Amino acid sequence: METNIILDALWVVLAGMLVFFMNAGFATLESGMCRSKNTVNILSKNFIVFAVSSLGFFLLGWGLMFGDGSGFIGTKGLLFASGADNSPNVGAAYEGVYSAISWAGIPFWVKFFFQLVFCGTAATIVSGAVAERIKYLSFILFSLILTMLIYPVTGHWIWGGGWLSKLGFMDFAGGTAVHAVGGWAALSGIMILGPRIGKYTKSGRINPIPGHSVALATIGAFILWLGWFGFNPGSTMAADPGAIGHILVVTNTAGIMGVLAATVTAWIKLGKPDMSMSINGLLAGLVAITPACAFVSVTSSLIIGAAGGVLVVFASLFFDKLRLDDPVGATAVHLANGIFGTLCVGLFAQEGILGNEVNGLLFGGGLGQLGVQALGVVTVGAFVFVTTALIWLAIKKTVGLRVSIREELAGLDIGEHGNEAYPEFLSRKTNYAHLIEDMGSEEAKSEAKSKISA
Amino acid sequence: METNIILDALWVVLAGMLVFFMNAGFATLESGMCRSKNTVNILSKNFIVFAVSSLGFFLLGWGLMFGDGSGFIGTKGLLFASGADNSPNVGAAYEGVYSAISWAGIPFWVKFFFQLVFCGTAATIVSGAVAERIKYLSFILFSLILTMLIYPVTGHWIWGGGWLSKLGFMDFAGGTAVHAVGGWAALSGIMILGPRIGKYTKSGRINPIPGHSVALATIGAFILWLGWFGFNPGSTMAADPGAIGHILVVTNTAGIMGVLAATVTAWIKLGKPDMSMSINGLLAGLVAITPACAFVSVTSSLIIGAAGGVLVVFASLFFDKLRLDDPVGATAVHLANGIFGTLCVGLFAQEGILGNEVNGLLFGGGLGQLGVQALGVVTVGAFVFVTTALIWLAIKKTVGLRVSIREELAGLDIGEHGNEAYPEFLSRKTNYAHLIEDMGSEEAKSEAKSKISA
Amino acid sequence: METNIILDALWVVLAGMLVFFMNAGFATLESGMCRSKNTVNILSKNFIVFAVSSLGFFLLGWGLMFGDGSGFIGTKGLLFASGADNSPNVGAAYEGVYSAISWAGIPFWVKFFFQLVFCGTAATIVSGAVAERIKYLSFILFSLILTMLIYPVTGHWIWGGGWLSKLGFMDFAGGTAVHAVGGWAALSGIMILGPRIGKYTKSGRINPIPGHSVALATIGAFILWLGWFGFNPGSTMAADPGAIGHILVVTNTAGIMGVLAATVTAWIKLGKPDMSMSINGLLAGLVAITPACAFVSVTSSLIIGAAGGVLVVFASLFFDKLRLDDPVGATAVHLANGIFGTLCVGLFAQEGILGNEVNGLLFGGGLGQLGVQALGVVTVGAFVFVTTALIWLAIKKTVGLRVSIREELAGLDIGEHGNEAYPEFLSRKTNYAHLIEDMGSEEAKSEAKSKISA
Repeated sequence: METNIILDALWVVLAGMLVFFMNAGFATLESGMCRSKNTVNILSKNFIVFAVSSLGFFLLGWGLMFGDGSGFIGTKGLLFASGADNSPNVGAAYEGVYSAISWAGIPFWVKFFFQLVFCGTAATIVSGAVAERIKYLSFILFSLILTMLIYPVTGHWIWGGGWLSKLGFMDFAGGTAVHAVGGWAALSGIMILGPRIGKYTKSGRINPIPGHSVALATIGAFILWLGWFGFNPGSTMAADPGAIGHILVVTNTAGIMGVLAATVTAWIKLGKPDMSMSINGLLAGLVAITPACAFVSVTSSLIIGAAGGVLVVFASLFFDKLRLDDPVGATAVHLANGIFGTLCVGLFAQEGILGNEVNGLLFGGGLGQLGVQALGVVTVGAFVFVTTALIWLAIKKTVGLRVSIREELAGLDIGEHGNEAYPEFLSRKTNYAHLIEDMGSEEAKSEAKSKISA
Repeated sequence: METNIILDALWVVLAGMLVFFMNAGFATLESGMCRSKNTVNILSKNFIVFAVSSLGFFLLGWGLMFGDGSGFIGTKGLLFASGADNSPNVGAAYEGVYSAISWAGIPFWVKFFFQLVFCGTAATIVSGAVAERIKYLSFILFSLILTMLIYPVTGHWIWGGGWLSKLGFMDFAGGTAVHAVGGWAALSGIMILGPRIGKYTKSGRINPIPGHSVALATIGAFILWLGWFGFNPGSTMAADPGAIGHILVVTNTAGIMGVLAATVTAWIKLGKPDMSMSINGLLAGLVAITPACAFVSVTSSLIIGAAGGVLVVFASLFFDKLRLDDPVGATAVHLANGIFGTLCVGLFAQEGILGNEVNGLLFGGGLGQLGVQALGVVTVGAFVFVTTALIWLAIKKTVGLRVSIREELAGLDIGEHGNEAYPEFLSRKTNYAHLIEDMGSEEAKSEAKSKISA
Repeated sequence: METNIILDALWVVLAGMLVFFMNAGFATLESGMCRSKNTVNILSKNFIVFAVSSLGFFLLGWGLMFGDGSGFIGTKGLLFASGADNSPNVGAAYEGVYSAISWAGIPFWVKFFFQLVFCGTAATIVSGAVAERIKYLSFILFSLILTMLIYPVTGHWIWGGGWLSKLGFMDFAGGTAVHAVGGWAALSGIMILGPRIGKYTKSGRINPIPGHSVALATIGAFILWLGWFGFNPGSTMAADPGAIGHILVVTNTAGIMGVLAATVTAWIKLGKPDMSMSINGLLAGLVAITPACAFVSVTSSLIIGAAGGVLVVFASLFFDKLRLDDPVGATAVHLANGIFGTLCVGLFAQEGILGNEVNGLLFGGGLGQLGVQALGVVTVGAFVFVTTALIWLAIKKTVGLRVSIREELAGLDIGEHGNEAYPEFLSRKTNYAHLIEDMGSEEAKSEAKSKISA
């Protein structure tokens, strides 16, 4: 086999493993940011979601996304990732019926694995937003459909040779294809699910519901930081060290500026440097740079990251104002910054940036590119928001979406799994049962009250 | 140095690091699945076991396993991993007195490191099964002997040019050589140690003893998942991307099917999707595919993984029925599935699978291969079970094997280490002292009662 | 691009990522070893310190360290890592104005990233030593100055073509350049900060203040262990597998001997195998081998690591005797063993060790080399200790260095961040308020007493 194929494949395999490990990051981040009574449930969701994604993407998703077909969807090689003539081991730029990804000259299963871990990321973004009230089974069903049917369609538009890619839409590592898709699915989910009991009162007060372990959340943040070094530089899908080094530093720079900007913003706005804002600042910077990371200079990444860090604080407050309850801030991180970063391509992209400069000019792209980026943001958003809303509603009508009030107050760990996360530690439960009168529905009140008196 | 040697060595070094990190996975998985009063002890065991393994394998184990010698054992280059003429830096297919591993054309110390982390895995498998009652010193002694004398012998049979390898026994990444060996050593250990106080009552009841932190256990599961991507694909010991990609996807597919199958099985059988079963399902699928991962198709891995996931649930219940107390289910995971996976080579192996297909046929191997696999399972099992039983008994007679009842009730952290894992958190201890009358021995009862009244 | 450049760059990128991940290791290790009331603060410090380091090293530090200039400091290409003519993507041995690092023939940003993560390590070493009493803002300011102005100067002496490197000072992976620098900065910090309330009494008693989670600390230890496999072997900055394999095994061997020696020493001296001593033994062995790892045999690493493991126990007791309060033992680990390891180069270094032997002779180096090593230890130590002391004092005079007694007793999490790490778990706080009369200052006593009566 030719040396360059081996080099490319080794790099993609290792980068893909780092992206896979982001599942551990999301699991710890999200469970740390939620209450201990729902910890088993959140961990279980984040654990099984990659299993479900792997199955869904293998069964159908890969083919819909990368199979040859129309500008809208792949129609060849659909089932079991198996085109008629694909030869996984040829190594050379393999085509088969997946010609949209034949530019990456690496063995078939290496391509598949790398795309699979990206698909899994989109699905796991949703889990944090809908946490602490969704039924386990319903989340599993949604994840299967998302990774098998929704993510692959917009993925086909952007990376599978579809209509957006033909228009020149640029999304290097998935600011729209992965993060905004996950974010839109999360948004439609929390709109249909409704907020957690006690989060918002009738009088308009917003109750902070602190997570049970900042230690767990911070472990998650570090793992995600590491994982992004696979996510962005790995999206070269080739061992081009100039590009990898550039993207790596651009990614880290945006991330650290996100940390600093969000910390300062929270310090000024809330009076203290809140740790969860520092963490979401990191993620915001990393998401914001994701679509643009191969097209902008390091200096530009300073600005993009810092803007992302400020944006996430205000987006969090904004979603809260709309009474859209997102326990971990997934929409503020992945949706707001996925959109912002995608537009940044239009603002900051510079041709040939990977080849010949260090700091360069700040502004590139241009109005035409900005328009294409905006078109992609809107169309992908509309498609994903509408289709996922329909799926959430369909699940709601059939197996149901939300656990009972009784179960929500007691915690989903017992109700859904029959386990407790920390059966030995004594804790004060924060179930906000006393806020039940603020909930509006008479049925809810009476169910809740009977629980409390029991 | 030739490029292909550099490529091979980089891959093996990085894969070996992932396998090393499995020590962190076992430490967190096992401590999360046990009680908080024994957490320091479990972490200490998992921490020092790799130190002990490294020493034992360096001092003697490597030479016994890979040194030239008879079909039963290596007899050359025994001490300090130093054959007479080995030149670590030559890069080319180095022979020296370790000709069984000269097929891997990478520098000496790279080979050594990769084999060392495998040896360490076998030793750390034992620690979970014997947890919550074994003396720290006794475990250290056992681990030293296991890695210096036992693991290398069966390893020689399988991978060191010994008699099983000559018969055509196939164990690609160590389903028997690592997992079943660890599993047999664990089984003999828990038979000789006996169950934890309170696990089984005279009346035949089996008390669940829940672990103190599902969060810790889940972190461990994710780390192990990642580590397996080094364990199986790294066992190529060469940068062959077609093989690596195939093995990677086969490994992940078996793992996720293990998750799904075990979750569903537990849901049906126990009424709820128990998280610890999901985790052990993952590990079961990963263990089951380990010996066969380079010989079977992705489609076959769907079946092998799913079967492993079902098997682990029933194996756990089976060992419990035999009153063999394994706090983390190590025997159900590593022994039962190590055996099952080794037999799967006979059922599913297909020649040339790495080179030229995607999904392929399901069944290969054949009766002859199945027979050889069974022979390996039985002989390795008999050798390891008997020799480790003798070692456990010898340690029992000399330094003793089990902590006092008093210490077991109070927790091993104070008794063995003088530390508490969480000195600030208030907790309810589950020591099952009230079940002491079920224990049979009069001496045990009186010692325990004096403790309780104190 | 030439294949060898791609190979070198891939290795350095991946090794750098492992070193980056050590931030997660330090965060969990340090927070686990401190009290739960200060957990958010410690995690926040360890989280933001890499952001601050990244910014400081990019703005100025890189240029001071590697820019062409005098023997004392770099004077070219200072700002924004941008020499006049640097071309990041040329791949070949790039010079520009950073000729001291042109020996590494990899793209500019890859070099930058690898050096950046080393700089970040030096800064994060400090955070553990000053934990549980330093103001968040003050630590941020100190870290910025350290990484922008101090670390780069001594780094220039050693690795940037400065006077020590010209004298033949040898520090392969940063025993002095990173670990001792961090250690000296930590030492001056804890001398100026003073001990935590309750650590030392007037009567001379030393109170142990146990950390709140051995599980967190152990996770950190494993991550650091893994990270060191990037730290030392990665410092080749080239894909030389003979060297990488040798350094990898030497590093691991020293680490495991540190574990074993410290565990046994603690067992003998303190009566029990204390887990935190096992962990610090690991780190001690790893630090001790860091400067020498490419110059000594595996057999020598057995001795160096074991000596480091013994040293760390006695150094911890020694610093405690001097009433220098270092909650995590950072000075005993990084300073004492950074010095010891640097001197070991003089004692054990052997020419050509990477190329042609396995176990070799134990002693090399020689008196001349030992003298140069000692000179480096002393001059770097004097420079860093004095300059960091001045910085600590300047911060103390301006924004202040230490939180109020009131805040220290209540915990820094509430005071500095307005968060609690574990808001649900019930805990007994260990604030040592009853020891306030031992503190000497009347002001301190009255402030503290008013707190207690409140």
